[in-house]
Amino acid sequence: SSTTHWSRWQHPSYRIEADTFGELKVPVDKYYGAQTVRSTMNFKIGGPSERMPIQVIKAFGILKRAAAEVNKDYGLDPRLADAIVQAADEVAAGKLDDHFPLVVWQTGSGTQSNMNVNEVISNRAIEILGGKLGSKDPVHPNDHVNKSQSSNDTFPTAMHIAAAKEVHEVLLPGLQHLHDALHAKAVEFKDIIKIGRTHTQDAVPLSLGQEFGGYVQQVKYSIERVKTAMPRIYELAAGGTAVGTGLNTRIGFAEKVAATVASLTGLPFVTAPNKFEALAAHDALVELSGALNTVAVSMMKIANDIRFLGSGPRSGLGELCLPENEPGSSIMPGKVNPTQCEAMTMVAAQVMGNNVAVTIGGSNGHFELNVFKPMMIKNVLNSARLLGDASVSFTDNCVVGIEANIDRINKLMNESLMLVTALNPHIGYDKAAKIAKTAHKEGGNLKETAIKLGYLTAEEFDAWVKPHEMLGPK
Amino acid sequence: SSTTHWSRWQHPSYRIEADTFGELKVPVDKYYGAQTVRSTMNFKIGGPSERMPIQVIKAFGILKRAAAEVNKDYGLDPRLADAIVQAADEVAAGKLDDHFPLVVWQTGSGTQSNMNVNEVISNRAIEILGGKLGSKDPVHPNDHVNKSQSSNDTFPTAMHIAAAKEVHEVLLPGLQHLHDALHAKAVEFKDIIKIGRTHTQDAVPLSLGQEFGGYVQQVKYSIERVKTAMPRIYELAAGGTAVGTGLNTRIGFAEKVAATVASLTGLPFVTAPNKFEALAAHDALVELSGALNTVAVSMMKIANDIRFLGSGPRSGLGELCLPENEPGSSIMPGKVNPTQCEAMTMVAAQVMGNNVAVTIGGSNGHFELNVFKPMMIKNVLNSARLLGDASVSFTDNCVVGIEANIDRINKLMNESLMLVTALNPHIGYDKAAKIAKTAHKEGGNLKETAIKLGYLTAEEFDAWVKPHEMLGPK
Amino acid sequence: SSTTHWSRWQHPSYRIEADTFGELKVPVDKYYGAQTVRSTMNFKIGGPSERMPIQVIKAFGILKRAAAEVNKDYGLDPRLADAIVQAADEVAAGKLDDHFPLVVWQTGSGTQSNMNVNEVISNRAIEILGGKLGSKDPVHPNDHVNKSQSSNDTFPTAMHIAAAKEVHEVLLPGLQHLHDALHAKAVEFKDIIKIGRTHTQDAVPLSLGQEFGGYVQQVKYSIERVKTAMPRIYELAAGGTAVGTGLNTRIGFAEKVAATVASLTGLPFVTAPNKFEALAAHDALVELSGALNTVAVSMMKIANDIRFLGSGPRSGLGELCLPENEPGSSIMPGKVNPTQCEAMTMVAAQVMGNNVAVTIGGSNGHFELNVFKPMMIKNVLNSARLLGDASVSFTDNCVVGIEANIDRINKLMNESLMLVTALNPHIGYDKAAKIAKTAHKEGGNLKETAIKLGYLTAEEFDAWVKPHEMLGPK
Amino acid sequence: SSTTHWSRWQHPSYRIEADTFGELKVPVDKYYGAQTVRSTMNFKIGGPSERMPIQVIKAFGILKRAAAEVNKDYGLDPRLADAIVQAADEVAAGKLDDHFPLVVWQTGSGTQSNMNVNEVISNRAIEILGGKLGSKDPVHPNDHVNKSQSSNDTFPTAMHIAAAKEVHEVLLPGLQHLHDALHAKAVEFKDIIKIGRTHTQDAVPLSLGQEFGGYVQQVKYSIERVKTAMPRIYELAAGGTAVGTGLNTRIGFAEKVAATVASLTGLPFVTAPNKFEALAAHDALVELSGALNTVAVSMMKIANDIRFLGSGPRSGLGELCLPENEPGSSIMPGKVNPTQCEAMTMVAAQVMGNNVAVTIGGSNGHFELNVFKPMMIKNVLNSARLLGDASVSFTDNCVVGIEANIDRINKLMNESLMLVTALNPHIGYDKAAKIAKTAHKEGGNLKETAIKLGYLTAEEFDAWVKPHEMLGPK
Repeated sequence: SSTTHWSRWQHPSYRIEADTFGELKVPVDKYYGAQTVRSTMNFKIGGPSERMPIQVIKAFGILKRAAAEVNKDYGLDPRLADAIVQAADEVAAGKLDDHFPLVVWQTGSGTQSNMNVNEVISNRAIEILGGKLGSKDPVHPNDHVNKSQSSNDTFPTAMHIAAAKEVHEVLLPGLQHLHDALHAKAVEFKDIIKIGRTHTQDAVPLSLGQEFGGYVQQVKYSIERVKTAMPRIYELAAGGTAVGTGLNTRIGFAEKVAATVASLTGLPFVTAPNKFEALAAHDALVELSGALNTVAVSMMKIANDIRFLGSGPRSGLGELCLPENEPGSSIMPGKVNPTQCEAMTMVAAQVMGNNVAVTIGGSNGHFELNVFKPMMIKNVLNSARLLGDASVSFTDNCVVGIEANIDRINKLMNESLMLVTALNPHIGYDKAAKIAKTAHKEGGNLKETAIKLGYLTAEEFDAWVKPHEMLGPK
Repeated sequence: SSTTHWSRWQHPSYRIEADTFGELKVPVDKYYGAQTVRSTMNFKIGGPSERMPIQVIKAFGILKRAAAEVNKDYGLDPRLADAIVQAADEVAAGKLDDHFPLVVWQTGSGTQSNMNVNEVISNRAIEILGGKLGSKDPVHPNDHVNKSQSSNDTFPTAMHIAAAKEVHEVLLPGLQHLHDALHAKAVEFKDIIKIGRTHTQDAVPLSLGQEFGGYVQQVKYSIERVKTAMPRIYELAAGGTAVGTGLNTRIGFAEKVAATVASLTGLPFVTAPNKFEALAAHDALVELSGALNTVAVSMMKIANDIRFLGSGPRSGLGELCLPENEPGSSIMPGKVNPTQCEAMTMVAAQVMGNNVAVTIGGSNGHFELNVFKPMMIKNVLNSARLLGDASVSFTDNCVVGIEANIDRINKLMNESLMLVTALNPHIGYDKAAKIAKTAHKEGGNLKETAIKLGYLTAEEFDAWVKPHEMLGPK
Repeated sequence: SSTTHWSRWQHPSYRIEADTFGELKVPVDKYYGAQTVRSTMNFKIGGPSERMPIQVIKAFGILKRAAAEVNKDYGLDPRLADAIVQAADEVAAGKLDDHFPLVVWQTGSGTQSNMNVNEVISNRAIEILGGKLGSKDPVHPNDHVNKSQSSNDTFPTAMHIAAAKEVHEVLLPGLQHLHDALHAKAVEFKDIIKIGRTHTQDAVPLSLGQEFGGYVQQVKYSIERVKTAMPRIYELAAGGTAVGTGLNTRIGFAEKVAATVASLTGLPFVTAPNKFEALAAHDALVELSGALNTVAVSMMKIANDIRFLGSGPRSGLGELCLPENEPGSSIMPGKVNPTQCEAMTMVAAQVMGNNVAVTIGGSNGHFELNVFKPMMIKNVLNSARLLGDASVSFTDNCVVGIEANIDRINKLMNESLMLVTALNPHIGYDKAAKIAKTAHKEGGNLKETAIKLGYLTAEEFDAWVKPHEMLGPK
Repeated sequence: SSTTHWSRWQHPSYRIEADTFGELKVPVDKYYGAQTVRSTMNFKIGGPSERMPIQVIKAFGILKRAAAEVNKDYGLDPRLADAIVQAADEVAAGKLDDHFPLVVWQTGSGTQSNMNVNEVISNRAIEILGGKLGSKDPVHPNDHVNKSQSSNDTFPTAMHIAAAKEVHEVLLPGLQHLHDALHAKAVEFKDIIKIGRTHTQDAVPLSLGQEFGGYVQQVKYSIERVKTAMPRIYELAAGGTAVGTGLNTRIGFAEKVAATVASLTGLPFVTAPNKFEALAAHDALVELSGALNTVAVSMMKIANDIRFLGSGPRSGLGELCLPENEPGSSIMPGKVNPTQCEAMTMVAAQVMGNNVAVTIGGSNGHFELNVFKPMMIKNVLNSARLLGDASVSFTDNCVVGIEANIDRINKLMNESLMLVTALNPHIGYDKAAKIAKTAHKEGGNLKETAIKLGYLTAEEFDAWVKPHEMLGPK
């Protein structure tokens, strides 16, 4: 049954390339080479949806360009270096996405994806220079494209570049977008006084603006939490080569590569102060994933509240009117399913699960190399992307269109028994309690009951029971 | 700061015992010996609340008795064997609980707790036989109490005995208790028709009995799921000794010990068919923990529903009245906090976390021995106990006292717009939709709106809109 | 940056379709309609790799066919029914995969994917009958394709069908394949005696066959665990419609649909005994995910062991020679990276994370409907597929090619000090200990040391120290 | 069976106290009152090991003192305030630990523990002032001890105080202790050159000091990660009262309480800028738990490495000699079980599980109040304590005593084939590869093989193959 998926990777015509294991057919229209093909044969796990995230490939493009530039400084033939730079730029720009067929479930160091990148850049550079695909001449995938590098330091470098870019390009803008929309609602709703709920039960009032202000604070802190995790993401392993010692690199290579990547991305990347840690552990990704997990927790709370506050139209809480984005029941007006809340809470659950996968992968490194790299970065990128995209979708298709159902909010406020606490100073605790108990028993409201019991007049009730004076300390 | 806790373990007077590392002070009023004391010195982690679960100690009592009986069959001096049996019985009965000070966070094989048990039984047996504590004569902790055993097979055996007993004595009775109470409510509520809710939004009706019937089914399946995991828990590692080969045991020892444990406990224990798997992996505990995790999921759903259905008294859904078990607000009658639901949902979250800990521990065994044993069994027992206890507490203090708020349920039903679907066959889709849309816009109810629009009479409405006919297929 | 992905969904030419919200452009070469297009606009979350798993779509094909057949029995125009059956078959066969663009992150009931299926089948059936795409005539997506159904019962039905098929077609065959290969190795290695390791430290011997026998048992139980979870997966929600009551279905519909699905799939599907539970909770998927989690735990243990036992070639344990599948270091023969073990352990970590996501989603259902459905099934299918595929890859590319490094195994055996225990009965504990201590101190082996100390002769040593007699009880 | 545990809470003689639900027996030797007793009756879940962490109780002592001091500023009778301060100090000092019997599994707001504290302080203050226990006169638990407070703001305040103190008093000192010991080892081992291992396979060399330097970096970052999470822990909810508005407090109360707590603890507590967020969400605890989770990941890596590097004595990697802390096999010298590593890795697994529980609890708050508070703080404190204690235990009983097994390290280095890479520049790639392949095939070492093949002399080999020149870039 899974054959179907894999058959997409078969191609009508091939060239023959060889690695040290022998010859292999490579599709003629592909830049990758023998090692990539071999990986597709050895790792038939999961199908196309499990491909190495394209963000990792693009990050490799940036890294390979940076390495070529630095290698040029250290003596790499400028003609080759420039061709590598051009080819790497195309990878970084997403122009060669179809040439990266490998799945996440390969070697845990990501070696095969590094080789996939080396092969593609090598062949594309060869093409640029007028050579023959697969000839490894004049641009060799290992000797030139991978020069001064090892999978063991390039893959974690690409992981960090990809994570940082996804955070900056998708996640943080998405969270800021949500923050701003919630903040606007908090301002819009600042004078709407409503019943509070604790333990899901009626409680003393607050303003709807205050309630949304809590959400604003959560998103504000979400942004801070993500940013707080970034300094260690900005540390790049490049220059550590095979085990972290930097064997086969030149002094200064690591620093220059990091500086070049920083320049290319506009992000403050630096060389990792300890390359052993940078290869053997990916605690920085676990840390970032933990921040994403906390963001997911915030999102779950906010989306849950909004769907419950918008529940109804008749038998729910009904304090909010959510925008209707798609046909609900054709005959049942007002049944607006909180579909954006549902997408967001599903995303939140996924991010929490992803965090566990990242945690387990991060904890199982051994000696000089953690070999859960592809799985870890897949999950971190997935979490960042889903949270960022869902924040935008939730904002644009739900938050900005939320309206307060003022009539309902006022009705619940007026019916509430919690306001009786405002009478204590005026008629004493015992009479206030008697009013509340009677109203609860008889189903009446406080004002009517209080008057009926003869404890005060309508004017006194209105003068003493002022919800808007219950919204802060005095 | 943590010194305080540990100082409880200091005692005023001591006897001197020695292990191969030298002499140690042992409290005179304790049966344990040098190896136990040494463990308390080397593993000052977490304090008394982190002690090895007493259920494991009691299970060891059962195992040590069984082993002594079988060893007697194979030639162990009956006088010694009988004293061991008597001492082990006391351990199993919980009479010597204060003699087991070790924490979970010790060696991952549980060796030190096995030695703690050996020392206590040895010294108690020595006492029974009139010997001197600490003399190892005439009952030696290793040679006699631990005969034909290794920590590596006894600890997993005790794990399985403890888990099986906790499941049978606490968890399953608790779940059954909850099941029966929910079932009684489902029967009690079978004729109460209420609005359904999907996406937390108003939907077509069902009976409150049907709603509770869903919960009943979840608990029924919870029981099935736990039972389904038990066959592999009934498999005992005893007889595998150090690496699973059974070195230093006699043929038949493993089978006889399992049979004796089965006889002592009334549970269908058998010897594990593969001792290598039984020592090196604890997949059976991961499987059981997975069942407990699923139970926790069910409990979270049920408790969440009940607290939301019981929310109010005025501004919530208010369809259920939950029993009031403790003072809420003194002045605010009717604010009944769903505290039992809260305890249950907290338990559910804990069980889900415990399951991850068990999973990680289970996955990290190496070669012939998994060394996350104490942590794994601690979490499994904690989950089973919490779910069992919480089920009883939730049942007795919440479920049995739940009352349907019929007035509220009827009011929501009558106000609902979803019933309009019943008019389609009689007046056509377009008119039905018009009624619903008008009612939603104007805040009116269906009947009044339909009549006002002139589409039908009050009698027709009552004849055609019958919620009790919407509760099943036709 | 994420725009790139979504632009793939733009098409050059369109037809206009309308839903109740207005007109929308639908690509002319697509069978889906307005509701599907609207979903792609409202849920731009995650991109193409986050599409609803194609297994769910195919399962919908089976379900829609079954429903059409049963509806025909109950009076649906046979011409329409037959066209629906034909179109549904094409969906089930994967012929229309490109017509299902929606992502997982949509409404939590999967309504939009249900509508996507309805629209595709409707339009394809219209085409078959010579009608005009988008006309809803003569086959209406709701009135005919979705007849007697609701998203709320069809989506969970499709979830169960998809999960059951993935388990039977991918997971169980994969596990069986692995089981058989490991079993063959256990037999092959049954006479190879090696040092055991507990706490990762040297221990008494066992045979390599026994060690592999532990793995065999784990995989055997993995299969059992998955099968144990299936009975509740075989229960189908179809017939419950919107809230579980079966409103708008005919008596017998549910049972007939389940029977038809069973017939079409060859799997023992039945109608769920309680439809309220089947819509509002997905404990059955949590249970299955728990079984997959336990399988992942087993896989992690096995793959970890194999990579450590195959570590080297010089500085590791080196007892196993793993097959070399791809170029390692060109200059460094013998450095065979255990890449299949790495893929497997990454898969295991992912499955553990997926299980948490499923757990959280399962626990957060409310009232009559759980709205984490798409996320839950995505993760369950992902886990099943990854474990199944990885089992095959691991088997074919690693397990079957494992060879015992007999020289190394024998060398470690001979050097081991643990065998000294065999001398106890012959020369006494004290002399045996002295031999071991001296050998450890001087770095000598037991035999040489024993002879040097004058405790026994070479012949005696050989006669008394027989590892192959240490492999079982006596 | 669980009756045993609870029976400890029964006492021989009682006084009668009443709450609004009626009279209850309170043990005469206890300061707590009716509401505490009622909670013990309603929440028989888990037994004594599940009691509210004493750190929370002590934190309440600090908070209640601070509140009394501020209330005195605002007019509370100084005589009462001073008695409350004295009683609260005793709670904070742990002098009244036996008066707090409640378990974690109570109401999710922690109300009952807040009342437990109020009752104990009230009665103790009454005693100080010469009054009668249980009279609520002259110090009322609600009116005076809880003045200007609500469970909803006091419990989260106590959570943050307890977490901050545990982090500062146990966790950070523990991590620093471990850091320093690892750093000392990294320095001690800086000149010991050893084989590197990637994919668990032999790789190019590094120094043992570099390897330990990676661990040092991980612990250094662990400390940073925890500190990074603290700013939001320092924010206190006090002053928010029931729903976050600060109803019934005076302007300035919140700020003064936070300042007083800061002064009492020496930690930089401030009042939470948004009290709605501070009551309704506990993202700050999720964030801290995420940091602890990352620390656990680091600990798992370090402890795993050390146990594998110390594996043996003969059949493992054997590069490290771990201190022997307890009797291993009496006859088997050198079998030092890495028990401290095992305790540490078990702790790590527990912390990862705890993090999931905290995550789930944090995500399930509703409206103005999260009601998973006791569960969340229990897990955070447990994680912090276990990691801190285990770090000290691991350091003192393992790390400081680690010795490098120089002979073994050198032997593995000399046998390694990876050093052949150093010959490339001198004899060319092809000859170097031939040497390695031949050595691998024949089991020889590089030097002998190279000489035998006639490619170089012994002197040349020694001149060219210098592992210590392979430890960094050039």
